[in-house]
Amino acid sequence: MTRHAASAEEFEARLRQIGAERYHDRHPFHRKLHGGNCSMEQVQAWVVNRYYYQSRIPMKDAAFMSRVDDPALRRAWRSRIEDHDGSADEEGGITRWLRLAEAVGLDPDYVASTRGVLPATRFAVDAYVRFVQEQPLLPAMASSLTELFAPKIHKQRIAGLLEHYDFANSESIVYFRHRLTEAPKDVAFGLKWVLDHAQTAEAQDEAANALIFKTNVLWSQLDALWSAYVEPARIPPGGWTPGEGALK
Amino acid sequence: MTRHAASAEEFEARLRQIGAERYHDRHPFHRKLHGGNCSMEQVQAWVVNRYYYQSRIPMKDAAFMSRVDDPALRRAWRSRIEDHDGSADEEGGITRWLRLAEAVGLDPDYVASTRGVLPATRFAVDAYVRFVQEQPLLPAMASSLTELFAPKIHKQRIAGLLEHYDFANSESIVYFRHRLTEAPKDVAFGLKWVLDHAQTAEAQDEAANALIFKTNVLWSQLDALWSAYVEPARIPPGGWTPGEGALK
Repeated sequence: MTRHAASAEEFEARLRQIGAERYHDRHPFHRKLHGGNCSMEQVQAWVVNRYYYQSRIPMKDAAFMSRVDDPALRRAWRSRIEDHDGSADEEGGITRWLRLAEAVGLDPDYVASTRGVLPATRFAVDAYVRFVQEQPLLPAMASSLTELFAPKIHKQRIAGLLEHYDFANSESIVYFRHRLTEAPKDVAFGLKWVLDHAQTAEAQDEAANALIFKTNVLWSQLDALWSAYVEPARIPPGGWTPGEGALK
Repeated sequence: MTRHAASAEEFEARLRQIGAERYHDRHPFHRKLHGGNCSMEQVQAWVVNRYYYQSRIPMKDAAFMSRVDDPALRRAWRSRIEDHDGSADEEGGITRWLRLAEAVGLDPDYVASTRGVLPATRFAVDAYVRFVQEQPLLPAMASSLTELFAPKIHKQRIAGLLEHYDFANSESIVYFRHRLTEAPKDVAFGLKWVLDHAQTAEAQDEAANALIFKTNVLWSQLDALWSAYVEPARIPPGGWTPGEGALK
C-alpha cells in the first residue's frame, strides 16, 4: 500500500511534537540553570562548551549554502551567518557569547580557543556540521528547525539568569535577546521551505528524522555537561577544570 | 628554536603514558562491569552500545586501506577486516559479539539493527571513522594504537565476567578471547609503523594527539552509558530501554 503524505498542517504538528518530546528544554541541566541552582563553575562549564556549538553554526550554514544553486535561497540563508559573525557595523552572536564568557569570569581568548571543550560536545556538534554537509537539502534544512522551539527557552533563560545570577544583566546576556528576534525570522523561512518541499511520506519521514537527529545533538551536549560537572561530577580526561581559563 | 624529535624509545613511552592516563580501563563503568556490580540491564545496555563500535571498526579499516597505495601495507591491514567480518571458514568478531548479545538475553537482530544505540555513542564512533577517513595516514594509524592497552582490559574482562555473571562462559565471551591474540598482532605492526614514520617532533605530536583523540572516543562512550543507565540513570530520548529487543 502506498503511504500518502500528511497534509502540511499534520506534518507541521508532527514536527512540533518532536520538539515537545525531545527538545533540550526538557533536560534537567536547563531546569537547574534557569532555576538558579547552578554553581558559577557549572555556568562556566556550560559557557565553555556551548561556545563550541555557537562557533560551528556559521560553518554549518556555509556548508548548507555551498550546496544551494538558487541565489534566492542562498540570499535568504546568508543572514544566519551575519547574525553569528557580525559585520563592520554590528557585532555578531559569537562576540556576544564571548561577552557572556567574560561576565562569568572567563578569559574570552581561552573560550574562543575551544581548549577544554568536552570531547562528547565536540563529537555531537561535529556530527551536526557533517550532517548538513552531506545530507540532501531537505533534511539539512529540517535539522535547523529546532529553532521552532528556541524562543521559549531563550525567554526562560533570560528571566532565569536575570533573577538568579549576579553576573546577568542586559549587557552580559545580550546574546539571548538578539536570538529572540533572529530565530523566529529564520525558522519561519525554514519551516515554510520544509513544508513546501516535503511532498511525499518518505520526504516527510526524512525531514522528521533530521529534526530528531538535531534534538539528539542538543540533548547529548547537556548529558555530557551533566556527567562532567554535576554531582557526582566526573570530568573526562582533557575536559575543562574549574579555574582553567579564568579572567586575570 | 627547532624542536628535535624524541627517540623511538622516548616516543613510545609518551604513547604508553597516554594510555596510562586516558585509556578507558580507568573508567568506573569498567570497574563496575568487571567487578560484577552491573545489573543485567546495564550489561545489556553495554552490549547494545558497544556493538555499534564493533560494527564500525571494519568500515574504519576499509577507509584506511582505501587511502593506502602500498599493497604490502594494505595486505598487512586486511586481516583486521577479516578478524571482524569473518570468512567462509570462520566467524568473525561481529558474529561473536552477537553471540554475547544472545547470551545476555538480547535478540541479535535487534542489536545488529543498531536501533537504541545512544546518540552520544553514535557521535563518538562516527567521529572515529571520519577521523580515519580524513586524517593523514600517520595519525589515522596512530589512532588504532589504543590496542596497545587492550589485552590488559580483555584479560580483566574475561576473568571478571566469568567470575561474576551467570551468562558468561567460554562460548558467550569467545569474542574477548580472540581479541587477546588478534590485538597484539595488529598493534605490533601499527606501533612499529608509527615509530618508523613519526620522524619529526611535529609528526610525533600529531600521532600522540591522534591517540588522545581515540581515547576520548572510547571514554565518551562509557560516560554516555553511565549517564543513561547508572543511578541516577537518565536515558536520553530514543535510547534503548530495558526490555527492548529482548530474546523471545
